[in-house]
Amino acid sequence: MARELAVVLASGGLDSCVCLAEAARDHDLALLHVNYGQRTEARELAAFGALADHYGAARRLVADIGYLKAIGGSSLLDPALAVETAGLPAVGAPVPSTYVPFRNAHLLAIGVSWAEVIGAGSLWIGAVEEDSSGYPDCREEFYRRFAAAVDAGTKPGTRIRIETPLIRLDKAAIVRRGLALGAPLHLTWSCYTEADTACGVCESCRLRLRGFAGAGVEDPIPYAPRGA
Amino acid sequence: MARELAVVLASGGLDSCVCLAEAARDHDLALLHVNYGQRTEARELAAFGALADHYGAARRLVADIGYLKAIGGSSLLDPALAVETAGLPAVGAPVPSTYVPFRNAHLLAIGVSWAEVIGAGSLWIGAVEEDSSGYPDCREEFYRRFAAAVDAGTKPGTRIRIETPLIRLDKAAIVRRGLALGAPLHLTWSCYTEADTACGVCESCRLRLRGFAGAGVEDPIPYAPRGA
Repeated sequence: MARELAVVLASGGLDSCVCLAEAARDHDLALLHVNYGQRTEARELAAFGALADHYGAARRLVADIGYLKAIGGSSLLDPALAVETAGLPAVGAPVPSTYVPFRNAHLLAIGVSWAEVIGAGSLWIGAVEEDSSGYPDCREEFYRRFAAAVDAGTKPGTRIRIETPLIRLDKAAIVRRGLALGAPLHLTWSCYTEADTACGVCESCRLRLRGFAGAGVEDPIPYAPRGA
Repeated sequence: MARELAVVLASGGLDSCVCLAEAARDHDLALLHVNYGQRTEARELAAFGALADHYGAARRLVADIGYLKAIGGSSLLDPALAVETAGLPAVGAPVPSTYVPFRNAHLLAIGVSWAEVIGAGSLWIGAVEEDSSGYPDCREEFYRRFAAAVDAGTKPGTRIRIETPLIRLDKAAIVRRGLALGAPLHLTWSCYTEADTACGVCESCRLRLRGFAGAGVEDPIPYAPRGA
C-alpha cells in the first residue's frame, strides 16, 4: 500500500537528517533542498544528495533562491561580515549575525507549493527552538502561525501539515534520536565556514559538537586539527 | 524629512500600479519585482521598470524564483496547460488553472526579508479578493495570518505591516482609484498570454477590461483586433 507522501526540507545538516529519518518511518519522501548563496552551498548540496541516495528518494527538488544573497543582511551570505566563532549565544543575547532574515519562510513557501502540486499531506523541517542559535524563524510559534497562513492561502481541498519534530529537542537529544532511528549522521554537514573538514569553532560546529558530547558518542565527520 | 520606507511588490500590472500609487502618497519606495517563469515575464519586467522610473524609485530589487516553473501546477507556467479564455470564473467555481500554488507567499517572504534588512516598516501588495480570479492566496484572511507569522518569525525589534489597500475593491473601483491618484495606468501590463498587444480574452484581460468599462473610461493600452 502506498504511504502518505511527505515533503522534507533537507539542508544536509545534522538536524534535517534526523528530521528526515523521522519522516521516513511512515511516509514516502519528496526531498527538497534550497540553495541561497550561503558560504558552504556546494558542500551542503553534496550532503543532500548523499542523504537522498541513502533513503532512496526518487522525488528531489533543488530550488535556488540566490536573491537572498542580493538582499544580504547575514554573515552567512556576506563575505564582509565575520561569522561568530567566540562561543555559543547566551539566553537573551541578540540574534547572531548568521541569521538570514526570514529565511525559513522562503523554505516553507517552496515546500508548500511543491506539496500542493504533488499532493503531499505534510511538510517537514528540522527547525530547533531550544538549544539553538536563537533565530526568530526557528520558533515554534512561527511555525504554528505559518501553518494557519497555509490553510488560508492554498486551495480549499489542500491540507498540508507543518511538522517540526525537533523543535523542542536539545542537540544531545537530536543526536540520540538520530542514532535510535539509524540516521546516517556520517553523511551530514553542519559547518558554516569550510567545505573539506569542518572548522569545529563556528557557531554551528560548536552546537553540533556539544550535541555529540552530550550524547556520549563521537561525531563521525572529520574536523580540522586544532591549535596547529 | 525622510518618510517611512515601504517595500512595494510591483508585477507591472494594473492592481500593483494602483497599490504603488497608494504607497507613494506618504512613503519612500523600495520596489520589488519577482520573475517566476510566467509566460509574459519579460513584458511584465518592462512594465515594472517603466513604473519604477515614473515614481523615481532608486531602490529596486528583481528576484528570480524560477523554481516555481519546475514545481509547475499552473497554466501560467506550463505551456502544456491552456489558459482559460472562456470567461470569468463564477462565484463558487473551482480555482482556475492559472493559480500558481501558494505563489503570493513567496512574494511576501521575499518582501519581508528585504524589508527587514533595509528597515522598511511596511510591505505592500496589490492583492484583490473581491472581483478577482478566486485565488486562495489573494484572500484577506491569508494576509492577516501571514502578518502574524511575520511578527513571530523576524527579529524582536522588527515591525513590518502587510498592506493590502485593494483587497476589497472591485476592478472598476481600482481603475477609479488609480485615476484619482494619477497612477500611470498606461504603463501597466495585465495580459497572461501575449507580449505586444494584449489579447483581450484571457481571464486577466477580461477582468481588466470590465474594470475600465465599469469606471466608464477607455483602457489606454493597445489590444489585438478582435474577430479578425
